[in-house]
Amino acid sequence: TVNGVKLWDDILETAKFGGTPKGGIKRLALTEEDRQVRDWFVRTCEALGCTVSHDSMGNQFARRPGTEDTLPPITMGSHLDTQPTGGKFDGIVGVLGGLAVLRALQETGRETRHPIELINWTNEEGSRFSPAMLSSGVFAGVFTEQEALDTKDREGVRLGDALEGIGYRGAEVCGAHPVAAYFELHIEQGPILEVEHKTIGIVTGVQGMRWYEVTLTGRDSHAGSTPMRLRADALVTAARMIDAVQTIALEHGPDAVGTVGLIENRPNSRNVVPGEVFFTVDFRDPDDSIVQKMEDAFYAQASELAEKAGLTLDIARVWDTPAVQFDPECVASVTRAADTLGYPARRIVSGAGHDATYMAQVAPTAMIFVPCAGGLSHNEEESAEPDDVTAGANVLLRAVLETDMR
Amino acid sequence: TVNGVKLWDDILETAKFGGTPKGGIKRLALTEEDRQVRDWFVRTCEALGCTVSHDSMGNQFARRPGTEDTLPPITMGSHLDTQPTGGKFDGIVGVLGGLAVLRALQETGRETRHPIELINWTNEEGSRFSPAMLSSGVFAGVFTEQEALDTKDREGVRLGDALEGIGYRGAEVCGAHPVAAYFELHIEQGPILEVEHKTIGIVTGVQGMRWYEVTLTGRDSHAGSTPMRLRADALVTAARMIDAVQTIALEHGPDAVGTVGLIENRPNSRNVVPGEVFFTVDFRDPDDSIVQKMEDAFYAQASELAEKAGLTLDIARVWDTPAVQFDPECVASVTRAADTLGYPARRIVSGAGHDATYMAQVAPTAMIFVPCAGGLSHNEEESAEPDDVTAGANVLLRAVLETDMR
Ligand SMILES: NC(=O)NCCC(=O)O
Ligand SMILES: NC(=O)NCCC(=O)O
Repeated sequence: TVNGVKLWDDILETAKFGGTPKGGIKRLALTEEDRQVRDWFVRTCEALGCTVSHDSMGNQFARRPGTEDTLPPITMGSHLDTQPTGGKFDGIVGVLGGLAVLRALQETGRETRHPIELINWTNEEGSRFSPAMLSSGVFAGVFTEQEALDTKDREGVRLGDALEGIGYRGAEVCGAHPVAAYFELHIEQGPILEVEHKTIGIVTGVQGMRWYEVTLTGRDSHAGSTPMRLRADALVTAARMIDAVQTIALEHGPDAVGTVGLIENRPNSRNVVPGEVFFTVDFRDPDDSIVQKMEDAFYAQASELAEKAGLTLDIARVWDTPAVQFDPECVASVTRAADTLGYPARRIVSGAGHDATYMAQVAPTAMIFVPCAGGLSHNEEESAEPDDVTAGANVLLRAVLETDMR
Repeated sequence: TVNGVKLWDDILETAKFGGTPKGGIKRLALTEEDRQVRDWFVRTCEALGCTVSHDSMGNQFARRPGTEDTLPPITMGSHLDTQPTGGKFDGIVGVLGGLAVLRALQETGRETRHPIELINWTNEEGSRFSPAMLSSGVFAGVFTEQEALDTKDREGVRLGDALEGIGYRGAEVCGAHPVAAYFELHIEQGPILEVEHKTIGIVTGVQGMRWYEVTLTGRDSHAGSTPMRLRADALVTAARMIDAVQTIALEHGPDAVGTVGLIENRPNSRNVVPGEVFFTVDFRDPDDSIVQKMEDAFYAQASELAEKAGLTLDIARVWDTPAVQFDPECVASVTRAADTLGYPARRIVSGAGHDATYMAQVAPTAMIFVPCAGGLSHNEEESAEPDDVTAGANVLLRAVLETDMR
């Protein structure tokens, strides 16, 4: 089993890189804070005797050799980037839990046939650079490296430039790395495990998700002297579309969700009728056909609203990640590990996207969830119990070792 | 009469300070661009033989002596700051039209009993620092100088610091300056004069206006894994309030207007259910009791919407400027001037606030409007005809001279 105290210490220690007054973390991908935690990852893994490298997307790999070192590695991983007001656990538990596994192997002198690798994926959150899971997506061939490098943040900074700026653009081509299997430990980010008093979620797959970018164009005008009937107010119509996104999600069954998370209003001045609004939409459901139905409903309602208001509407679907089923063998390894260790467990479908979503396309993959308080995530108050995090890392260790012996 | 060609040249020349690719101006109050145009104002007025000073709020005064130089000055003025996507005429026509008047007096060697002064008011737009007409408000005693200096922009920069930063905090206490009368030339910023083919609007007053700041607090959470029923989405409820602002304005008669011009969403990330939204509301009507009714309706609906969604609501009225009637004598001077010059004219109430709104509290005041294309203002495409602008300045000249002889 892993050293849970050391694992918790690592969580608290790395939380300093981008730590916020409210106890959360602001460590957007490829910022100075991200560089700091990456440097820490290199130092710490090297101290455990691992070789650490990074590829052309900045994905970091810490490698512990195997006795049959030409076998492809069994990998563990997640991400160390966070939301602008993120917590201390989302992604971090997966990387530091993997580190705890490496430490356990090292300290007990345990040999494995396969090399064991721990991966820190670049830009998983999708907050600074859209979409999410961008670099595991390049790794899996879902996006080309070029389009990923050319992705710009909302300030217009190119991902490739930000990556070079922090010194993490490597020579190894992203995706060239062989992988025998991939396991990702993560907090659930939802309420189910906590409510049902389960320590371990055996993740069978990830729901389908799509992202959209909407631009509504009207006409800037004076808020005092422009009569209501002469306005082309982009914000009022955007507001109706935001309302529609919620209504659509509520109308499509208990699992469907719909969110407008980002909005930019122009010129954003108190006494100017807004002439242009940009906002994003996120629709998800475990059933891809329901995601499609929500998309259809939104496109129809948005067109109607824009037309009625005399505004120009531009909608683009910028991300489409169909529902994923994880590898039955890997899921079975997780199930047996939880069972052997005696942790209460249940099968669960992930509501959030994870790097495992894309890794499942190129390697046998599974995930392990642990509970988080109130199901709260993407929030500075995100929290998890040390014992649960340790339990998750123990399951990860056992699943990796079982896979190595297969 | 004034030199219309030189006046138009001045408009084009100063449009370079903060000029945008789309032909508009971005010259927010107390920025480097504002400093540049202020320096130009000093140079140009001094070249006409005026003495130029500025007070403790950075309001600039260009003075042409009178034959009875101890009399209080007859003043003209407006502002040189703009919206983030402002045009070349809003405010600017009033300052440069006043400059054309000074030039006409100077070039013809015309003597006046009173000194004649031209004023450039600080932060009229209310876009960088809220509220609008802040420094004419201090001049008129509506705001204290201290509260104005302590006003912060959305980035947290203090007005007083920005003012010192560009070197325009003067020693003369704002408001200590005597004023015999105040005339302000401005574009209409609405469609009436153009539609009715009038060259001159004889402004009889300004409608009532109020600004509000609204903060809605819910809870950041994950857009993928947080079921709809467990959300406290501040943006969805803000959207309903934005819709309500429009509906309320439409329900309160043909003159009522209601606008949400500024919105800030937090954390503003595509896959985070928004936990906090800040937005502003602007309600106006020529009848103050209608403004009150709109306020009552908004407070009631906003409370209900927030309560239904389980969100915390904070609303503050941050600006209240009741409707203003201008001085009958000054309005009569404008009327006679337009009449004598043979310009088609009509009486009109201003939908926009102007520094004249506050000056009317401390001096006999009136305004002159000229048409702008399509009634469009607070837009980079704002435009006005050279002949109309010249006509406005001619009316200004005549009204000032008539007042001087009274
Ligand atoms: N795990 C996680 O929060 N990933 C971000 C991608 C998503 O939006 O689901
Ligand atoms: N004239 C003008 O646009 N002033 C800004 C103040 C207002 O919002 O009316």
